[in-house]
Amino acid sequence: MSKLLKTLCCFSRSSTTATTTTTRSVATAAAAATTSTPKPSVHLDETKPTTSTPSTMGSIPTPSSSAVNPATETFLSLLESRRSIYPLTKALPIPEARVQDIVSRALQAVPSSFNSQSNRAVVLFGAAHDKLWADITTGALRKVVPAEQWEPTGQKMAMFGGAAGTVLFFEDQEPVKKLQEGFPMYADRFPTWAAHSSAMLQLAIWTALESEGLGANLQHYNPLIDAQVAEEWKIPSSWTLTAQLVFGGRVEGQDPGEKTFQPLEEKLKVFGA
Amino acid sequence: MSKLLKTLCCFSRSSTTATTTTTRSVATAAAAATTSTPKPSVHLDETKPTTSTPSTMGSIPTPSSSAVNPATETFLSLLESRRSIYPLTKALPIPEARVQDIVSRALQAVPSSFNSQSNRAVVLFGAAHDKLWADITTGALRKVVPAEQWEPTGQKMAMFGGAAGTVLFFEDQEPVKKLQEGFPMYADRFPTWAAHSSAMLQLAIWTALESEGLGANLQHYNPLIDAQVAEEWKIPSSWTLTAQLVFGGRVEGQDPGEKTFQPLEEKLKVFGA
Repeated sequence: MSKLLKTLCCFSRSSTTATTTTTRSVATAAAAATTSTPKPSVHLDETKPTTSTPSTMGSIPTPSSSAVNPATETFLSLLESRRSIYPLTKALPIPEARVQDIVSRALQAVPSSFNSQSNRAVVLFGAAHDKLWADITTGALRKVVPAEQWEPTGQKMAMFGGAAGTVLFFEDQEPVKKLQEGFPMYADRFPTWAAHSSAMLQLAIWTALESEGLGANLQHYNPLIDAQVAEEWKIPSSWTLTAQLVFGGRVEGQDPGEKTFQPLEEKLKVFGA
Repeated sequence: MSKLLKTLCCFSRSSTTATTTTTRSVATAAAAATTSTPKPSVHLDETKPTTSTPSTMGSIPTPSSSAVNPATETFLSLLESRRSIYPLTKALPIPEARVQDIVSRALQAVPSSFNSQSNRAVVLFGAAHDKLWADITTGALRKVVPAEQWEPTGQKMAMFGGAAGTVLFFEDQEPVKKLQEGFPMYADRFPTWAAHSSAMLQLAIWTALESEGLGANLQHYNPLIDAQVAEEWKIPSSWTLTAQLVFGGRVEGQDPGEKTFQPLEEKLKVFGA
């Protein structure tokens, strides 16, 4: 199981199973954060159409540069610069209060089904962060990873523990239940929409923290650690853990490597343009 | 059922069942798109702590304004300005090619588990958009909504049809299955992570389009319309529809209304700061 745990936990880490045929350099978060220069866009006509390309999808003219909105360019550039970064350090380039401010604003800003506001977050700094990785997660993994296979898992725990903090994402099942009771015909859909809202929050905080010069990576050690996390930080019983965003200072000269992309024409279709 | 359909379909529309105790004015997308002026932040110390507030969560100093990163402020302001906007018009303030550019870049930028790239999108403009709402969705609803209750549903279909276009979000089950086969121990988790990636894409495109001065709202008429959508636009059988983002021109003077917020201290906990 250690091999699985070693490789599985990461969101957006490159997989050998994914079909990847194109590469593209991605600007660093720091660069994106200090400039609003428009970056080259990915256009459908950069890739040759396949046989499945609908006949109505043609080459559409690129908008003139005068039409480019700098706020949107900043937004897209930050999304494009967001990567999974590790290892991380405890040297935060911004005050802890700024991290908290970003989490707070994102928590209030992201949408939820019926504005049900099911998202919850716990931010762990310092000793609390250390406890999560060196104690709770390490302890939970030791129970399931064979001792002779422990080494890579232990190294990984040390890596996460070496970062500055963690944002724990939760969904509060109370507002989800209320919607289910109010609209029983759609009861099976509300958990999915709560998951959507949680993911939106994860992306928002991840991107904003990297815009500030931090590095971050998204982990999923739930449900293995749920009970101990709940006990340690007195998490309400209705909160369900969904993800853990590890954040910290970036190591100088660190390069997350090329991000590989499946061709756009396999992912996108346009009709009626 | 028409009452349910009338009220249920919307993501982030205010609900009477949600506990909402605070309100806050939200800048328009247009304003956010043309300025990088930092907006007031929501701080924990704006709200009085409850009995469940952990003892380690104290008043943390606000970072000095000199530390504020303008790119991050733009990013957060755009997230805060994103709202569910309707009705919408067919008068797009930007070229269709720019919409396509935004969808393309967001598709490539958002993360996915193991970089599995499960997200797919179909953008419908013009007659294709009209077909989705006036024909496919209206037709599917007519079969399930009693005729005497049709009026509000019909008005809603006309409203969505009156917009300029729709982004259909899909998850490709092929990369999800590959991960499940590669890591059977976690087979039940990959669909959740694919849903997370889809939601991240929804937020990215919704926010970017509103930054461009468009309005948008997120609908979920899947799975009611899946079969006909697949047939009409020859969607690969492995693609599963997850959401529909309606977009278009904004009506002058349109106000989405105050967004209500549950107090932050019920949503956020901080430890170790």
